[in-house]
Amino acid sequence: NHYLVIGQGSSVSTCVNELMSAIERGELKLAPIVVLFPSEEERKKVELPEEIEVLIGDPTNRETLERARVDRASHVILALEDDSKAVFVTLMVKRMSNAKVLVEVLSEDSVELLKGAGADRVIVSRSLAGRLLASSVFEPEVVDVIDDITSSVKGYDVTVMDGKEFWGRPYIAALRELKEERNLFLLGYYLGAPVLNPPLDEPIPEGARLIVLRGSVSTGKL
Amino acid sequence: NHYLVIGQGSSVSTCVNELMSAIERGELKLAPIVVLFPSEEERKKVELPEEIEVLIGDPTNRETLERARVDRASHVILALEDDSKAVFVTLMVKRMSNAKVLVEVLSEDSVELLKGAGADRVIVSRSLAGRLLASSVFEPEVVDVIDDITSSVKGYDVTVMDGKEFWGRPYIAALRELKEERNLFLLGYYLGAPVLNPPLDEPIPEGARLIVLRGSVSTGKL
Ligand SMILES: [Ca+2]
Ligand SMILES: [Ca+2]
Repeated sequence: NHYLVIGQGSSVSTCVNELMSAIERGELKLAPIVVLFPSEEERKKVELPEEIEVLIGDPTNRETLERARVDRASHVILALEDDSKAVFVTLMVKRMSNAKVLVEVLSEDSVELLKGAGADRVIVSRSLAGRLLASSVFEPEVVDVIDDITSSVKGYDVTVMDGKEFWGRPYIAALRELKEERNLFLLGYYLGAPVLNPPLDEPIPEGARLIVLRGSVSTGKL
Repeated sequence: NHYLVIGQGSSVSTCVNELMSAIERGELKLAPIVVLFPSEEERKKVELPEEIEVLIGDPTNRETLERARVDRASHVILALEDDSKAVFVTLMVKRMSNAKVLVEVLSEDSVELLKGAGADRVIVSRSLAGRLLASSVFEPEVVDVIDDITSSVKGYDVTVMDGKEFWGRPYIAALRELKEERNLFLLGYYLGAPVLNPPLDEPIPEGARLIVLRGSVSTGKL
């Protein structure tokens, strides 16, 4: 069981750093992270911690995927900078493995194709950028907030936790208790989809997981 | 005074849609949005509403920027898919205009160069993607939340508002009043930097702007 990251560029290094930091915090199961770069050249462009196992090879090649033990990976992350390759590799991985496949694409138009190919999650990197560029025009503070809460490396973090002990209790009571006893700020809950901004006196429904904000560990804001 | 978006790909269409939606909501000053594509080919790949003025031309060419009336733009947004071009165009725009320049780059390494060139905001699209790919592994619910709050088109929205009337009042009192009277959920405040998760009984400091979450207008969750 390992986490396999396939691709090139900033997405790869950021993803690996965030995975390592989640493992350190105990939020992600300790397992090796393996990175497969398509070429030596792409490998040289990305800085990675020493403990990361690195492979070089064409990910559209079945043998390369076998060498990366894709059949035993729990998660395969694709950041290929090429949406048609992403579709192709997703199809191959899904045939060779039960791994969850999480894919970065460059174009919104590729989302449906990727989902059809079996991708469990598709992130459109440039759409996110476009939204934040627009927000920079009329609400730069919001961009600072998003930038912070999407990175576990600084400031605050959004995270989810089991909500069992709060089921049936009013939202405001849970908010108070989480803040006073654990210094967590209740943002909302998750029940199939995010429910944010609920009425303060409404009880938290059974089955809900809680979405909370915390000072992130690395800055000691806890 | 207009908003000038220069570039290609998904970032351009997403950015234009978010700007239009902010104008509709009255959060952004009504002014024309002008899009400059580097080529006819790139123009064809992007769907834009009819009312958007479109230009075609090489943005590294001074005459093209003059044609786009860069001197009279309030904001220039660059989504060029080429970080060295982004540096070059930023330098040119900053010499020709007082516009704020907001730039998407593909690599983290380009951030300092762009800031040196005068960019007012730099968004690293692939780093964001990398973070969300990692979060998809260990907290997919958080990715749903981020995906929702970064897009004004669906679900919830994070936004900032004047906080004057709440200065000096305890955080929890402001939270209650905003929720009960305006159905806004207080996430934190902004005073030079985001302050989220503050003590509930601490007063909101003078000068703070409030960061709030609301059901977004387009879904009628208000
Ligand atoms: Ca953070
Ligand atoms: Ca939203």
